[in-house]
Amino acid sequence: MTRERRRSGRTTSRSTHQPGKSWLRIKNPYPPIAQFSEDELEAIHLTSLNLLRDKGIKVLSAEARNYYRKAGARTSEDTLMVQFDSDMLLETIRHAPSAFTMHGRAPERWFEVGDNNLVFATVGGPPHYSDLENGRRAGTHETFCDLLRMAQNYDVIHLTTPMVEPQDLPIPVRHLHMTRSVVTLTDKPTFIYSRGREAVADSLEILRIAQGVDQQAFAKRVHCYTVVNANSPLQLDELMCAGIIDFAKAQQAMILTPFTLAGAMAPVTIPGALAQQNAEALAGIALAQIVQPGAPVVYGGFTSNVDMKTGAPAFGTPEYVKAAFASGQLARRYQLPYRTSNVNASNAPDAQSAYESQMSCWGAIMGGCNILLHGAGWLEGGLTASLEKFVIDIEMLQMFASLMQPVVCDQDTLAVSAFDEIDPGGHFFGTQHTLERYETAFYTPLLSDWSNFETWTERGSIDATQRANHIARKALGDFIPPPLDEAKREEIDAFIEKRERAGGASLTA
Amino acid sequence: MTRERRRSGRTTSRSTHQPGKSWLRIKNPYPPIAQFSEDELEAIHLTSLNLLRDKGIKVLSAEARNYYRKAGARTSEDTLMVQFDSDMLLETIRHAPSAFTMHGRAPERWFEVGDNNLVFATVGGPPHYSDLENGRRAGTHETFCDLLRMAQNYDVIHLTTPMVEPQDLPIPVRHLHMTRSVVTLTDKPTFIYSRGREAVADSLEILRIAQGVDQQAFAKRVHCYTVVNANSPLQLDELMCAGIIDFAKAQQAMILTPFTLAGAMAPVTIPGALAQQNAEALAGIALAQIVQPGAPVVYGGFTSNVDMKTGAPAFGTPEYVKAAFASGQLARRYQLPYRTSNVNASNAPDAQSAYESQMSCWGAIMGGCNILLHGAGWLEGGLTASLEKFVIDIEMLQMFASLMQPVVCDQDTLAVSAFDEIDPGGHFFGTQHTLERYETAFYTPLLSDWSNFETWTERGSIDATQRANHIARKALGDFIPPPLDEAKREEIDAFIEKRERAGGASLTA
Repeated sequence: MTRERRRSGRTTSRSTHQPGKSWLRIKNPYPPIAQFSEDELEAIHLTSLNLLRDKGIKVLSAEARNYYRKAGARTSEDTLMVQFDSDMLLETIRHAPSAFTMHGRAPERWFEVGDNNLVFATVGGPPHYSDLENGRRAGTHETFCDLLRMAQNYDVIHLTTPMVEPQDLPIPVRHLHMTRSVVTLTDKPTFIYSRGREAVADSLEILRIAQGVDQQAFAKRVHCYTVVNANSPLQLDELMCAGIIDFAKAQQAMILTPFTLAGAMAPVTIPGALAQQNAEALAGIALAQIVQPGAPVVYGGFTSNVDMKTGAPAFGTPEYVKAAFASGQLARRYQLPYRTSNVNASNAPDAQSAYESQMSCWGAIMGGCNILLHGAGWLEGGLTASLEKFVIDIEMLQMFASLMQPVVCDQDTLAVSAFDEIDPGGHFFGTQHTLERYETAFYTPLLSDWSNFETWTERGSIDATQRANHIARKALGDFIPPPLDEAKREEIDAFIEKRERAGGASLTA
Repeated sequence: MTRERRRSGRTTSRSTHQPGKSWLRIKNPYPPIAQFSEDELEAIHLTSLNLLRDKGIKVLSAEARNYYRKAGARTSEDTLMVQFDSDMLLETIRHAPSAFTMHGRAPERWFEVGDNNLVFATVGGPPHYSDLENGRRAGTHETFCDLLRMAQNYDVIHLTTPMVEPQDLPIPVRHLHMTRSVVTLTDKPTFIYSRGREAVADSLEILRIAQGVDQQAFAKRVHCYTVVNANSPLQLDELMCAGIIDFAKAQQAMILTPFTLAGAMAPVTIPGALAQQNAEALAGIALAQIVQPGAPVVYGGFTSNVDMKTGAPAFGTPEYVKAAFASGQLARRYQLPYRTSNVNASNAPDAQSAYESQMSCWGAIMGGCNILLHGAGWLEGGLTASLEKFVIDIEMLQMFASLMQPVVCDQDTLAVSAFDEIDPGGHFFGTQHTLERYETAFYTPLLSDWSNFETWTERGSIDATQRANHIARKALGDFIPPPLDEAKREEIDAFIEKRERAGGASLTA
């Protein structure tokens, strides 16, 4: 972990096409796009500080208010409001690391979060699942496991998430079965819900057993993360505060992402929505740093807008892109890693889902995001995890990963020798320069079909969404889970059995 | 026209949502993304100059070789090669304006090309047309007219193109009927094919009559443009040279776009392909400036890659994006306006067509392009103009136009007053701050459906491509052509009748 933010600038590499394992770690070589001038950014910053000083944020947890009060904030047990002196707030969040390393249970599954590192995660949280065969339906444990298999299958996915809610599992034990599936089907760092202290403790314990380390060793590395949204505007509830406190104590990562939809839970203007996002994010991050100075945290930006005719959330809009650019500026202002999302509001894995997702991704990635959540599978404003959209997104993420590979510009790649080999009006197919390089010269698509119309028609005129389904079915059929010691598996099973016998977890904070 | 390149920086405007007429002129407020360092850019530049000096470019037109020779280039009537002293070449292209204004026949249809201005054109050149009702088929005059109606209908389209080849019109008179349809169905600046000198002269004459000005006045403004590709690698044929010469003499715009697909007509490495693109572009632009110093020209970048397994062209790839960023750097190095494209290789207006187009558009627009050709309707690597893709693209272009609208950041938009109106955990729907702004706060989509799943299902689960078809049918049904004086119309008809009686145009250079 390092305080200093390094934009390490353009590095070079021999190959522009690095599939598979080389996507384990991605660095973004492009300087982030700024939406606002430095003065404008300062105005948003000051507005949020003034908001936290003059109005404050409502904190429903007495424990959290206690932490805030001891750190010097003004708290009211009457209104439950917490107000911050600006210097104290900034001093507190300065403890947060600008970057940290996350580790999955396989040795090669590590990556940096922060600086110009870029990490992709799957969709998190939808209640529904959909595929072309059976349409949209309530999420189940089996569909959750299928999505875990998909997440494990592609190296461009770095982090897993609760990709769909397994509604067929009883709530008190749901986290036990979910976390067991995570550690048996994947070997990547993962997400744990902040849905109560017992559930968090159970989930961390299962991860610890899978890692095969003691509690002390477990706490020395970041293996997982949670996301805490605010009850925007300007409120943190009991479970949220418990999540912040628990993850800070466990030294695991906490992403504070205000749910600021402009026009609904945030002002109808982008600068106003950003000021609110910033206030909520800083207040939550401050709590983590009060509980455990140096705890790994991430600045989350999720500002989008609603359809003002219906109130429906909209994603991948021009306003979303602007907010994503601006949120990156804010995160960098505080030297914090930045999280944003690949989102869309489409009801089907169609052209709209693709162009809205692309708008989101470009806004996120060129805005300098470090963690792209909801990277694969998100549909319908986050209400559905789509199997086909998952594959469409993997293709898009791989294209971005390939785009991030720097281009070497030297005598070889300037191809001076190649021009000696060809005649005007000829072609380069058979030149030595081409033959030496063609196999790894370009990105090879997963989903895109570049065959000509006649061939495509002969093969059944299969569109991208249908092809995505076929790719997913093949990947699921071929899936081999990553190795896990039988002894660890038994220990996990025994732990879960014990916890089930005890009735599972209480769902209170 | 001005030599000095102005990146005028961030300007402000009250409204972030400016539909319709306000999209007549778009400025890109974001600094362009660079792919290469200044040293690397210089290496590409020098490689292309050395290529033109040591190897040269093959020029099949004796008239063009004559122009080049008189300007100081070395030419061979044996090999047909033209070689350039680098200083002479750079001195010659320095005559080209860094920006110019184009005018349609309606007074409000003008815009700047160059600086940070952004102009969108429709798809140009496909032999085929497709729609959901009848699938893919040979282009006809009627389908060409339908696409012209679509192009006229959306203000985000600035320039028209030969959107599909009307294969039912005899070749010698095809240009006459096409140009008549252009001036009767649209009032925007347009494209003229360089398919022979008589055809160019005929088309310019029809535009002149429609403008209602004499030849001298016509030549004082830029009303139209042509695109000259090279026969890459390193060759210009008779028709191309004639196009360059004719458009320079007529003081109309010429976009020189080498057809550099890496691995096929260009080296398999991106820097090599760019060096070749640059050599070909500079050679063609030099011819225009020799014929008529100061003639409006545009630096065209089209570098993409092929599928090295099949040789099929690929578009919207990571390599395409990198080349688009780099081509913008090259164009700016010579203070020339920059043209690139919205392209994809999909056979259907599906998710692939959308994400590949988005990749292209982001590469183009964030690379600092001034003219985005093939902006709406391109499918299948340019072999088909799709009615539904046209609508999908219009939505995407409108989203980009909206993204380009700057965000005002002041006390009003920072929403300080709005926070006084709400309680923590409440919402902003009914606040005064929202009520005063909600109608114009956000981009309103054309195609995207943000309704919830239940409503969307009740309405028939219509995906984006099907909705695009409905939108196009309604636009075509409602279409009203822009006004054109009856006298002008008669004069055009008489001219065409006369030219048809004469057998139309010869197709030679």
